[in-house]
Amino acid sequence: MNEFDFIRRLSDQTSSRKHSARVLAGIGDDAAVLGGLADRNTVITTDLLVEGIDFYRDATPPRLLGHKALAISLSDIAAMGARPLWSLLTIGLPADIWATNFKEEFYEGYFVLADKYGVTLVGGDLSEVKGEIVIDSIVMGEVAAGSATWRSSASPGDQIFVTGTLGGAAAGLKLIEMGARLGPDGLSSLPAPSKRGAGTEPGAVATGSLAETQTSELKAIEALLHRQLQPQPRVGWGLVLSQERLATAMIDISDGLSSDLAHLCEASNAGALIQSALIPIDHDVITMCGRRALDPLMLALNGGEDFELLFTVHPDNVGRLPKRVDGVELSHIGEVTCEPFAVRIAEKDRVWDLQPQGFSHFKE
Amino acid sequence: MNEFDFIRRLSDQTSSRKHSARVLAGIGDDAAVLGGLADRNTVITTDLLVEGIDFYRDATPPRLLGHKALAISLSDIAAMGARPLWSLLTIGLPADIWATNFKEEFYEGYFVLADKYGVTLVGGDLSEVKGEIVIDSIVMGEVAAGSATWRSSASPGDQIFVTGTLGGAAAGLKLIEMGARLGPDGLSSLPAPSKRGAGTEPGAVATGSLAETQTSELKAIEALLHRQLQPQPRVGWGLVLSQERLATAMIDISDGLSSDLAHLCEASNAGALIQSALIPIDHDVITMCGRRALDPLMLALNGGEDFELLFTVHPDNVGRLPKRVDGVELSHIGEVTCEPFAVRIAEKDRVWDLQPQGFSHFKE
Repeated sequence: MNEFDFIRRLSDQTSSRKHSARVLAGIGDDAAVLGGLADRNTVITTDLLVEGIDFYRDATPPRLLGHKALAISLSDIAAMGARPLWSLLTIGLPADIWATNFKEEFYEGYFVLADKYGVTLVGGDLSEVKGEIVIDSIVMGEVAAGSATWRSSASPGDQIFVTGTLGGAAAGLKLIEMGARLGPDGLSSLPAPSKRGAGTEPGAVATGSLAETQTSELKAIEALLHRQLQPQPRVGWGLVLSQERLATAMIDISDGLSSDLAHLCEASNAGALIQSALIPIDHDVITMCGRRALDPLMLALNGGEDFELLFTVHPDNVGRLPKRVDGVELSHIGEVTCEPFAVRIAEKDRVWDLQPQGFSHFKE
Repeated sequence: MNEFDFIRRLSDQTSSRKHSARVLAGIGDDAAVLGGLADRNTVITTDLLVEGIDFYRDATPPRLLGHKALAISLSDIAAMGARPLWSLLTIGLPADIWATNFKEEFYEGYFVLADKYGVTLVGGDLSEVKGEIVIDSIVMGEVAAGSATWRSSASPGDQIFVTGTLGGAAAGLKLIEMGARLGPDGLSSLPAPSKRGAGTEPGAVATGSLAETQTSELKAIEALLHRQLQPQPRVGWGLVLSQERLATAMIDISDGLSSDLAHLCEASNAGALIQSALIPIDHDVITMCGRRALDPLMLALNGGEDFELLFTVHPDNVGRLPKRVDGVELSHIGEVTCEPFAVRIAEKDRVWDLQPQGFSHFKE
């Protein structure tokens, strides 16, 4: 099968699952053509995933990579309060990977998530690469005119919220770097025991009551790998917050809470004070860190890729916030302040400057 | 400068050149937001450029690479008969290239072309790669509702036309592979003499009257390198053909005339007969091939990346075609036939099957 045959098959697959009546033509022409509505704004985002930088080939089942490629762009659309509708996918594959069933599994994971949110793949590109796998994920959506939630519109006094829990994706990455792997039926390889960690011994997954502790720790490890490899975009929350005009500003947590809160404050020309005790640390992170001399709070503050939504709400509207959307709860973590760029965290009686320590591709 | 600083600077640059009042927000938020019109269709395309596959780093000045990345996507928009309005650009760069002024020169070339067509960069992504440079170019445009020119709507009897000339980009690639290079002020390195070519001698650029022939050959070489490295999208022609409803079907020549004509015929469930003598071979290709035992017709038929427009016109409308648009002329090369997938070329008294021999990333 050459690339044209593969694209033709993709086109057939997408025709059979066309969710949106407003796709006039998708895959198979020079460009996709979409019908518009006058009272809507179009929202578009693109995210590059590079092997060895954004994922490890040997640690990422292709199906989960397909899921993640779409999920990270859906998360951007969610952060604008928009409804995702269409996507494009550009893939560069080494010839040896092209010859495997990588692409079939990849698209399988991609389409399961696309179907969940009614997203239609309308185009893309496919090329050989000599080096690492590269994936560019593009998603378009729509939002009622004037309803998009920017990063730049938070005001002093607004209350700061975050969906779900934090630190899980970063802990999953640490576990992968320690050797943990997901197979088709759950964990296929365990992390090497931490060298510095208290309470670990060579070859052991955990100490204490072996049968019991192992089971709970294995469950935590598997959950954290899924947090890293199969992130869930908060599309439902994004829609509720924009439709009800509850969020004054919003961003998704891709680089890490400390970095993304700094981005939001910088864009809004404001500051923030968050409460250490209110940060919703992923429970599995606490389980995993307890035995590995890692600090769960640091993972929750600085670990990236949780793809939760971080947003601000006018104090008058806090009472109107739903308790949960799609089963995902909220945490109230702090308040927007008037001092530009001053992002601080209170821990017991002390207040610290919160340095952005999330992910950056290129260092100064 | 880290990636955030660089993106901020890009955002400042693009704000100062915002062509489209309908960009509500571009670079600097999670996604770009665009205002819509009800009587328009949105058109979107994406193209991946990979170092070593689509370009050679040492043969491609960054400024021209920036131009080409945008040009190839503008060409897709032109082939739909749409007006380009917005773009996104995703780049993966090795750390050593990031440290140079590659990106500044790249964006300079990109913006010169974007300004020419009033295109606003509204987003993108930037990442480190370990291997080759990768660039994903995304362009969005609009076309009056119902006016997009598909590949699939050619009918038997329609006349086949192509803009400009063919073979130049492929000849330029051959020259690059023979060692020719463009510097900031024209040719910086000449192609090695062809080993099999008649009339060449070691170290010589050309034979015959040295001063005279060399000048004309040097000019041809430089022009062909520009055809390869700095293709000109036929945006004006695309707009005229769709606005006047002259083209029944259209595609841009990216893979090569033989391949792209086959794509158009396949999509239209039709065939084609073209006349060998009517193929508009680039004049510089004839000059260059004459001394190198290469066949200009083969380059014009099978060479890719000319980014000319190939389109079909109902016989009643042929008289309404403009002679030229933006200084670019047309050639009438053949006719659509009723036998599906039968693409043929007539040469003197004989008719041959025209095999698609253009570019394909992955072989069967």
